[in-house]
Amino acid sequence: MKHLLSTRDLDRDTAVRILDIAEEMSRTADRAVRKLPTLRGKTVVNLFFEDSTRTRLSFESAAKRLSADVITFSAKGSSVSKGESLKDTAQTLEAMGADAIVVRHGVSGAAELLAHAGWIDATIVNAGDGTHEHPTQALLDAYTIRSRRFGDDARGRDLAGLRIVIVGDILHSRVARSNVWLLTALGAHVHLVAPRTLLPSGISTWPVTVHESLDDALDTGPDAVMMLRIQSERMHDAYFPSEREYAREWGLTAERATRLGPDTMVMHPGPMNRGLEISSVAADSPASTVLDQVSNGVFVRMAVLYLLVAGESQEES
Amino acid sequence: MKHLLSTRDLDRDTAVRILDIAEEMSRTADRAVRKLPTLRGKTVVNLFFEDSTRTRLSFESAAKRLSADVITFSAKGSSVSKGESLKDTAQTLEAMGADAIVVRHGVSGAAELLAHAGWIDATIVNAGDGTHEHPTQALLDAYTIRSRRFGDDARGRDLAGLRIVIVGDILHSRVARSNVWLLTALGAHVHLVAPRTLLPSGISTWPVTVHESLDDALDTGPDAVMMLRIQSERMHDAYFPSEREYAREWGLTAERATRLGPDTMVMHPGPMNRGLEISSVAADSPASTVLDQVSNGVFVRMAVLYLLVAGESQEES
Amino acid sequence: MKHLLSTRDLDRDTAVRILDIAEEMSRTADRAVRKLPTLRGKTVVNLFFEDSTRTRLSFESAAKRLSADVITFSAKGSSVSKGESLKDTAQTLEAMGADAIVVRHGVSGAAELLAHAGWIDATIVNAGDGTHEHPTQALLDAYTIRSRRFGDDARGRDLAGLRIVIVGDILHSRVARSNVWLLTALGAHVHLVAPRTLLPSGISTWPVTVHESLDDALDTGPDAVMMLRIQSERMHDAYFPSEREYAREWGLTAERATRLGPDTMVMHPGPMNRGLEISSVAADSPASTVLDQVSNGVFVRMAVLYLLVAGESQEES
Repeated sequence: MKHLLSTRDLDRDTAVRILDIAEEMSRTADRAVRKLPTLRGKTVVNLFFEDSTRTRLSFESAAKRLSADVITFSAKGSSVSKGESLKDTAQTLEAMGADAIVVRHGVSGAAELLAHAGWIDATIVNAGDGTHEHPTQALLDAYTIRSRRFGDDARGRDLAGLRIVIVGDILHSRVARSNVWLLTALGAHVHLVAPRTLLPSGISTWPVTVHESLDDALDTGPDAVMMLRIQSERMHDAYFPSEREYAREWGLTAERATRLGPDTMVMHPGPMNRGLEISSVAADSPASTVLDQVSNGVFVRMAVLYLLVAGESQEES
Repeated sequence: MKHLLSTRDLDRDTAVRILDIAEEMSRTADRAVRKLPTLRGKTVVNLFFEDSTRTRLSFESAAKRLSADVITFSAKGSSVSKGESLKDTAQTLEAMGADAIVVRHGVSGAAELLAHAGWIDATIVNAGDGTHEHPTQALLDAYTIRSRRFGDDARGRDLAGLRIVIVGDILHSRVARSNVWLLTALGAHVHLVAPRTLLPSGISTWPVTVHESLDDALDTGPDAVMMLRIQSERMHDAYFPSEREYAREWGLTAERATRLGPDTMVMHPGPMNRGLEISSVAADSPASTVLDQVSNGVFVRMAVLYLLVAGESQEES
Repeated sequence: MKHLLSTRDLDRDTAVRILDIAEEMSRTADRAVRKLPTLRGKTVVNLFFEDSTRTRLSFESAAKRLSADVITFSAKGSSVSKGESLKDTAQTLEAMGADAIVVRHGVSGAAELLAHAGWIDATIVNAGDGTHEHPTQALLDAYTIRSRRFGDDARGRDLAGLRIVIVGDILHSRVARSNVWLLTALGAHVHLVAPRTLLPSGISTWPVTVHESLDDALDTGPDAVMMLRIQSERMHDAYFPSEREYAREWGLTAERATRLGPDTMVMHPGPMNRGLEISSVAADSPASTVLDQVSNGVFVRMAVLYLLVAGESQEES
C-alpha cells in the first residue's frame, strides 16, 4: 500500500489491519513518553489548499508522535497564489525531501492526480478533496464505532451487522462518501437521511438504504447516528431549508436524543454547529463519541503514516 | 500547582520557587546544547485568539528547549472563526493529546474558565486574558528585577523593600495588574502613575501608592521604572491625551532618564513605541532591562512548564 | 566566516568549500535516517518580511535535518506591523536565543544592516534583500551546474571556463546579481540577456557580456541557460514589453529549447511562469535542472548553516 486516496481502495482485511495498528498506537497515549522513533528522519508535508485547522493539527500531532519532521505548506500567500501549478508545487515539495504529502484540496480528485499523474514518487494521503473523499475521517469513525462496541475485545474485528445512520448534507459530504464505502466494506449497513435536495443524483447505485425522515431512520434502532456538519456558507443555496426548519426536521434535537437506544452512539466529525444539526444535549451526552473521534483521529493517522511511510523505509533499508 | 492563571494565586514562597527554577533554566543558555529532555513526549498547545508574536515565540522556545512538541492553534481562519465555542475548541485540543494549553484571549477570565469549567483536564497557562492578567510577564519582570539587583546572590530571595514605579495605561493593562499582585507578594512596594482617566475605578483597594505626576513618582527614588506600552488603537479614545502631550507628561523622555538614580532599572514589556512612552535614550541605556526581560521570559516560561507539566508526569510514572 | 550576506564576500576557495560540504550533505538524502545531530540545541529563526514559501521551507528543512529548533517570525500580524523597528525585532529574537537569523526583506541592504549595525551578535544569513542579493540561491545554482557537469568527479572543482547565460529582468533580480559575482569567482563566464529597459544602469562595470538578443546569446553555445522569473506585478511597468512579446523575444520557447546543445542545462529558480519566460517543453526536458535546484537548495543551506552555526559552537565548547 503506497497511498491512501479513497476508502474505495480498502478491502475488509486492509481496513481491519489499519484499525488494529491504530489500536496499538492508542496504547502509547498512556505512557509517560508518547513518542515513537518510527519516522525519525522522515519528512511529512501538510499541503493544505483549504483551511482546516483540526485536520491539519491532527496529522501534525500524528507525525510528530512518530518523530517525523513536519512541514506545513499553506496555499495562501504562497507561490500557489502566484499561479504556480499543482504539479510544480508537488514536485518542489518532493525535491525538498517530502516522504509523504498530506493533501487537502477543494477539487475532487486532486489527491488521486498527485498520486497517479507520474509527477512525483512521494506517498499521498488524501485529507479531503472537494466533495469526493476524506478517508482518514472514515477510518477514525470506524475505529470509534468498533472500539465503543467491542472495547478490549475489538482487535481483528470488523463491523458486521451493525447499523449506521448518516444524517445531513450527503450531496456535498466527502465524509459521508468515505464512510459509505468503508463501513460497507467492514460489513455494516449504512442508512442515509437527508432532505431530497441534498441527496446526490446517483445515490440509487450506492449500497445504502435511504430515508427521507430522520424519525423513521432512528426507528430502525441504529448502533450509531452520525450527524454531518452543515456548512453555513451553503445554507443560502436554493436546495437548503431555513436553519430553523433544518434543525427541526434533520437535527438531532434534545427530544430525539432521548429517544435513542441506550447503546446508540452519537457521532459528529466536528466542528459542531450546536443547535443546528446537533443539540448540546446530544453532543454532551454519554452516548456522544465526538471527543473520542478526535483522539482516535490521531491514532488512525499515526497508523496510516506508519503503514505508508515507515513500511516503505523498512523495505528500503 | 496545576494551572497558572493569575499572580493572585501565588504566595511568596511559590513565586520565589518559580524564580529559582527559572534561574536553573538560565544556566542552560551557556551550554553547547541548550536542550533539556524534561518534556519529551509531551504536547504543549499555543491557543492564541489574539495575535502576539513575541509571547507565542517565547512560549514556543521555552517548550522546545524542554523537548516538548509544540502545536500552534491560531484562531484566525480556524473553526473558531466558523463559530466553534471555546469549550469545543479546548476539548478538541485536549483530545488531540494536549498536556498543557497556553491561552491568550481577548476576554478577561477566559483562562480561568478553561481551567475550572470542568471541560478539560489539561494544564492551563494564562498568556494574557483581556485586561485581567498576564502572569508570566509579571514573573519575568520580577525575575529581571531580582537578578539585576542581587546577581549571583539572587537565589531564594524576594524583593522585600524595593520600590517599583509602573507608568501608563493602568486601566487596560493586564501587565500592570499581574505585576501589582506579584511584586507585592514578593515584598516590594508598587507605585502607579497614570493620567486620571487611565486609572481603574477600584484602585483605592489595591495595595499601591498612586501618583498623578511622573516626576513626583521618580522623586521617590525607585529601584525600577516600568513603562507600559501604549496601545495605539486606544490613542483615539476619549480618555487619552494627544500623543505629544502623553509623551511629555507620562513618557520616560531623555531628560527624565538622565535624572534617574544610577541603579534604577528601566523596564518595558515590549514592543516599545520609541518616542512615545519611552525615549531611545532610556530604552538603550545601560539601565535598560528590555532585552534581559525577553531572555528571562524564556527561562521563566521553561520554569512554569517544568513545574506544571513535568511535575505532573513524574507523579504519574 | 560569521555571516552570509552576499556572494561578493566569497572567494573561489570559500565557495568551493561550501559546495563540497553541500555535497557531503547530499549523501544524507540516501540514508534511512536523514537527520544529523549537528545543530541540536541551536535555534534558527526565519525572519521573513516578504512571503516566500519556497525559500522559507527550504531553510526550515535544512535546519531541521541538522536537528536545530526552527522558529518562524513572519512580519505580518506581528509587532512589526505595529511599527516595531528592525533593530528591536532582531534584538528580541536574539534575546529569545536565536543562534542564526535567516532574513528576507524587501529593502536592499537589510541583511548587511542586521549583521554590522552592532545590534546583535547572531549569525545572519541573507535569504534575499530587495534587488540586492540572494546568495544561497546562487550557491545552489553553482552547485547544480557543477554537479551536472562533473558528477561524481565534482569535489574540489570550480566552474572555470563554463559559459552561463542569464536571461530576463536583470534590473530587479537579486538572483542575477548573486550569480554574477559567484559564478565569476568560480571562473565561469557570465552572459546576460535582457530588454534594454531591464538592464541596470551600472552594468558596464560588471564582469559580464551583455546581449540584446536571446538567440545571439544562445548561439555562443552556453553550458547553462538560466531563465529568471518574471514578477507579474512588474509586467505593467513602463519598461516592460507585453507578456506575448516578452515570451516571444525573451522566453525559452519550445522552438529555442530544441536548438540548445545536448549538454546545455536549462535552469530556473522557481516558481516558473510556464508559457511566459519558459515553455513547458523546456521546463520538463531532461536538460532541465529545475527540481535538482530545489533539492540542492536544501543541501547548500545545510552546508551554510553548518559552517556558520556549528563551526562557531565547536570553537565555543
